[in-house]
Amino acid sequence: MIGGGQGAFIGGVHRTAAAIAGNWQLVAGAFSSTAEKSKASGAEIGVDPARTYGSWAEMLEREAALPADQRIEAVSIVTPNHMHAPPAVAAMEAGFDVIIDKPLADSLANAQAIADVAARTGRRIAVTHTYTGYPLVKLMRKLVAGGGLGAVRRVSVKYTQDWLSRAADLEGNKQAAWRVDPARSGDAGAFGDIGTHAANLVEFITGARIASICAELTMLPGRRIDDDGAALFRLSGGGKGTLTASQICVGDMNDLAIAVYCEEAGLHWRQEEPNTLTVKRRDRPDEVYHAGGNRAYLPADLIAIQRTPGGHPEGYLEAFANIYRAFGEQLRGASGGAGEPGYATMDDALAGMNFLRAALQSSRDGAVWVDL
Amino acid sequence: MIGGGQGAFIGGVHRTAAAIAGNWQLVAGAFSSTAEKSKASGAEIGVDPARTYGSWAEMLEREAALPADQRIEAVSIVTPNHMHAPPAVAAMEAGFDVIIDKPLADSLANAQAIADVAARTGRRIAVTHTYTGYPLVKLMRKLVAGGGLGAVRRVSVKYTQDWLSRAADLEGNKQAAWRVDPARSGDAGAFGDIGTHAANLVEFITGARIASICAELTMLPGRRIDDDGAALFRLSGGGKGTLTASQICVGDMNDLAIAVYCEEAGLHWRQEEPNTLTVKRRDRPDEVYHAGGNRAYLPADLIAIQRTPGGHPEGYLEAFANIYRAFGEQLRGASGGAGEPGYATMDDALAGMNFLRAALQSSRDGAVWVDL
Amino acid sequence: MIGGGQGAFIGGVHRTAAAIAGNWQLVAGAFSSTAEKSKASGAEIGVDPARTYGSWAEMLEREAALPADQRIEAVSIVTPNHMHAPPAVAAMEAGFDVIIDKPLADSLANAQAIADVAARTGRRIAVTHTYTGYPLVKLMRKLVAGGGLGAVRRVSVKYTQDWLSRAADLEGNKQAAWRVDPARSGDAGAFGDIGTHAANLVEFITGARIASICAELTMLPGRRIDDDGAALFRLSGGGKGTLTASQICVGDMNDLAIAVYCEEAGLHWRQEEPNTLTVKRRDRPDEVYHAGGNRAYLPADLIAIQRTPGGHPEGYLEAFANIYRAFGEQLRGASGGAGEPGYATMDDALAGMNFLRAALQSSRDGAVWVDL
Amino acid sequence: MIGGGQGAFIGGVHRTAAAIAGNWQLVAGAFSSTAEKSKASGAEIGVDPARTYGSWAEMLEREAALPADQRIEAVSIVTPNHMHAPPAVAAMEAGFDVIIDKPLADSLANAQAIADVAARTGRRIAVTHTYTGYPLVKLMRKLVAGGGLGAVRRVSVKYTQDWLSRAADLEGNKQAAWRVDPARSGDAGAFGDIGTHAANLVEFITGARIASICAELTMLPGRRIDDDGAALFRLSGGGKGTLTASQICVGDMNDLAIAVYCEEAGLHWRQEEPNTLTVKRRDRPDEVYHAGGNRAYLPADLIAIQRTPGGHPEGYLEAFANIYRAFGEQLRGASGGAGEPGYATMDDALAGMNFLRAALQSSRDGAVWVDL
Repeated sequence: MIGGGQGAFIGGVHRTAAAIAGNWQLVAGAFSSTAEKSKASGAEIGVDPARTYGSWAEMLEREAALPADQRIEAVSIVTPNHMHAPPAVAAMEAGFDVIIDKPLADSLANAQAIADVAARTGRRIAVTHTYTGYPLVKLMRKLVAGGGLGAVRRVSVKYTQDWLSRAADLEGNKQAAWRVDPARSGDAGAFGDIGTHAANLVEFITGARIASICAELTMLPGRRIDDDGAALFRLSGGGKGTLTASQICVGDMNDLAIAVYCEEAGLHWRQEEPNTLTVKRRDRPDEVYHAGGNRAYLPADLIAIQRTPGGHPEGYLEAFANIYRAFGEQLRGASGGAGEPGYATMDDALAGMNFLRAALQSSRDGAVWVDL
Repeated sequence: MIGGGQGAFIGGVHRTAAAIAGNWQLVAGAFSSTAEKSKASGAEIGVDPARTYGSWAEMLEREAALPADQRIEAVSIVTPNHMHAPPAVAAMEAGFDVIIDKPLADSLANAQAIADVAARTGRRIAVTHTYTGYPLVKLMRKLVAGGGLGAVRRVSVKYTQDWLSRAADLEGNKQAAWRVDPARSGDAGAFGDIGTHAANLVEFITGARIASICAELTMLPGRRIDDDGAALFRLSGGGKGTLTASQICVGDMNDLAIAVYCEEAGLHWRQEEPNTLTVKRRDRPDEVYHAGGNRAYLPADLIAIQRTPGGHPEGYLEAFANIYRAFGEQLRGASGGAGEPGYATMDDALAGMNFLRAALQSSRDGAVWVDL
Repeated sequence: MIGGGQGAFIGGVHRTAAAIAGNWQLVAGAFSSTAEKSKASGAEIGVDPARTYGSWAEMLEREAALPADQRIEAVSIVTPNHMHAPPAVAAMEAGFDVIIDKPLADSLANAQAIADVAARTGRRIAVTHTYTGYPLVKLMRKLVAGGGLGAVRRVSVKYTQDWLSRAADLEGNKQAAWRVDPARSGDAGAFGDIGTHAANLVEFITGARIASICAELTMLPGRRIDDDGAALFRLSGGGKGTLTASQICVGDMNDLAIAVYCEEAGLHWRQEEPNTLTVKRRDRPDEVYHAGGNRAYLPADLIAIQRTPGGHPEGYLEAFANIYRAFGEQLRGASGGAGEPGYATMDDALAGMNFLRAALQSSRDGAVWVDL
Repeated sequence: MIGGGQGAFIGGVHRTAAAIAGNWQLVAGAFSSTAEKSKASGAEIGVDPARTYGSWAEMLEREAALPADQRIEAVSIVTPNHMHAPPAVAAMEAGFDVIIDKPLADSLANAQAIADVAARTGRRIAVTHTYTGYPLVKLMRKLVAGGGLGAVRRVSVKYTQDWLSRAADLEGNKQAAWRVDPARSGDAGAFGDIGTHAANLVEFITGARIASICAELTMLPGRRIDDDGAALFRLSGGGKGTLTASQICVGDMNDLAIAVYCEEAGLHWRQEEPNTLTVKRRDRPDEVYHAGGNRAYLPADLIAIQRTPGGHPEGYLEAFANIYRAFGEQLRGASGGAGEPGYATMDDALAGMNFLRAALQSSRDGAVWVDL
């Protein structure tokens, strides 16, 4: 693991997710940008001090030098956005597959650099767009892809939080500090941090790409990057949509919600209550699907990624674990149970970076339409 | 009453609403464009045959000729949109106040004509934007106006239905027929029929006007006016918003829902479950307000317009009745309990017509920004 | 109308319900136990002073003396429980059908007296167990009666309110005063006022009678009749159940909710959100039925009793109106659309009185089982 | 770990929970009643073959012989109920603390035997009443204990499932087989398996014990122990309650839900959506508490046991993990953050066994009242 030391948030999530996945073990790490802090973090987590490195460069070099059956199998990168590309590129060059937190990089150029190296080296990249790890999100994708619901006409997606709703929220908050600093986060704020999740969700479920976008991004006085915005978009397949991403919507915690209207049904899912999916039609009662390893109406490959019977709620950490598990299975030769790899690929991540680029350009030019 | 004969929908709603209101009686009418059908409809409803007229012109003339204490007190116009302006103008010229179904007219020009006559004659006009008749919608307005929640930052409003989701829905459906015919409905389809309700709700609650809009309207193949669309908008007060209005969103019945995010709270209300309002803040639990005549935390003027204690759900017809009741009270000199007249005024309705004009123009020009 | 004068609650509800029903007109009344107050109330409501009587005895005598086509068609009794039997008996003796608020009477003996007169005179009695007027409650009955769901195994019903949760709630509250006075309400408090609604709902939906009961009723210190209680019960058809009725459950407004578990499905409905019914099965997604006059999956006779399309919520007053409408239609020869009369009959009401008698006896004897 | 081999359910849950807890490692086990199957299971899980034992007796003997810093720290018992007492007693005699799945034993006598040994040896026992591991359940306990809500008046608790709703459900289902076999499960079926959870939840939240009970248990034809039942109960503190526990309530998955009515508020929580708690009062809007590590209105000790910010749902496995974590912390000297140990103690478990004994006796005697 690269990053995720003391005071970090997402690193701990990755570690717990890997523990739940059951097919990964954390055996080495460079947990901080300073050697001392990396050591302290490793000790706290219980990683072998001999494999707790002072820098990611050292880690890659020393691990690559170990015999194949003793070295790390893949690298997990959980640093701020601007520190994604350098270790990702180096890890692939050193022969390691990579799992990396979203967004792929702090700019489209850096993302493309990662993609180029991945293409050249043949290394795999998994990007943790967590929300596609939920079984019922995968069911939405299957229902749309199955064709029985007809074409997608309209999508409404929102991802709203409130932790930056006050001017003072930037003070003394490590999470906030790097996310709102263009030098570390990239040019995008809320649209990069959570808007890309929303866009990924749209593309994952519909099987289409966002083809053009008209976005208006704003920010509280004194801020340098967006903390709030909304967009109209058009899908490659012909449907239309709206997308809202905000970190100043007071009262909303982590409110990712999506409605996908097809010709014959509307699908509704909300991340904060992730174990139900509502399918609405005109001529029959709404259907409410429940997650759960024993719900016989769910496809077998979705049952396989759940740990408990229906009514024993699984949540965010289990969705995250599904990504780790799928990545492990893929690396070891499994075929990708749910008709998709189980994680966001390089292509998906590049689409997300392209989405960001277009949204920022649209907003800068006065909320005009920009093609992706 | 003008319109609302056999086969009509909204006329019956107006009549039941007036009955619930308790301060109106239906004593005369011209219920159809043909005298024969008007007579038959009047008989069915139980209106005195002597005051069931063959045309609205006849009704206005004969009623105006009656002694003041025997003639109708106001005229209710429930015809298709293109038949709003002529009887409205004539009624005001004949000395009657008017209650009229929304939208005010089939074009901004005709709406302005009504407004001009109203201004000249001093007659009152109430437009039945039904949804502002709900007590908890009035509470939202009060909460925002009170100032304790800070400025409005973002509004998300949707109004989605599915009754036109299929090509065949236009066949043999009287409601659909006039609504999708530009000659009778005006140039706007879904945006006119329900989008204006959504826009009115935004303006009622926030106390601001929609100042500019970027809208993309679409329609199923073979149709002449919009059945679906979405927009970004900017409020006069500085907030931003998104609006979706569609009659092809499969599975949605009459799904008007709004979220208003202020600096200190987010307000959430949905018409299909109109008796709860959720207020979310960052630092304390969400608050769920319940409608009900005995909920002591509601303002007295909102308690006064409810008929039953909490937990005895009131619905659409009671909201509609509140508009009739308020109009009657205003005509008879009451002051407008809830700090607003209790119905959409001429100004509100003109704003709605202007909204429509701008939305249509924006869409025609490729979803560009248009000022109102 | 007998009762329902100034300061009363349920009388106004009856009047609005009748107005919504559309097939009744209030033309005469004895609205209070004092002639003066009756006159004042009648004037306020707009009833012809000539037919606003000083007592119900006078009303029955004078109306019966009118020609058949001029006199009242039926009598609506909305007095406190102890004043149900005398006017009901007299009205039937005078040749009038009767609609009466529940419970039928203040004691089983008085209820039986009403029944005897009804049997002898052939007059009809409708008891306003409001909640069976909801379309989706009628759908539950149909679903169970249809047989496709198998036998009823378990029922869970609750009816909880909080308006008597404080000792002080009895002071200065006219509604409370008579309801907690055994001389006017009968021996039962909450079980009589709302427990009988719950029991009626169970019997209406399951088509079975409560055959035996083990109930424990309690009350706050200083009170004379129950304000809270719960019971186990056994159905005539073999199923089991639990019932809770309380007016001291803080935070609950009018929370009548029922779950009926059959061999193949569980049905769930809650009065405060009456327009959805959830049907749960093991092998398929839950189904959520929506009320609404245009929901094609609803039986035609249920569509016929709704006034608006789906998504335009109807509520308590409309459910109440359905009872008035059905009673009117029955009196005038209609067949009872939904396979049941549309209101609680004498048999239903006697079953309710018997339920009350057994519950009180069970509780008095230490919560032992008592057969009905 | 004792038990939890191939084909078992709860063993895997314990292992994942321990992994999430982060302060436990699975280092040894006797996973099955046959040595061969134990070895195969251990290999599958990744436990060192040298510490995968053929029987629990062997495990306890060999582990106890290891140096203190190398041997297991505690024993987790996840066998069917009849195999709780022997290994629990032996483990304590061998000097190990014990974490054990509920119910404590298959009979009150065996439970008492465990208690006696625990008392004599001073070993700790944690019983995994999972549902008290949820942060918002702990909040309910705190709210009641805080006293501001007044005394508990009424409790309504239900725990309903449907996996035994069909006669055929016993065939070929390992989980069902032992649970419905009195020789392995004890005399109680659903009441033992899930009714004890419900009873424990009541006692945990109210801080009172169930003092007497009137229960009626039933079962489908051909079964030997209860699969369904309901009870009235009285709390030691004076409140009343109802409890339903059933495994034949069709459509319910794992539907544990509780309402606790105090003098000043009603608390409502449901396990299938465990991250919200609703507190209802008479004179102000309902309050909805959200779980989440960043919700400032939650007590610090409840924030400490959550892994993610609000809106990132944690579920059943995380609640289970909280029990493992608390047990580990207690063994290592922590004080029990939330004002309670963080797991069900021997006293709690004995109370549960006593509850079961009384419920069974009540039902056998015709649903009469039995004191605990």
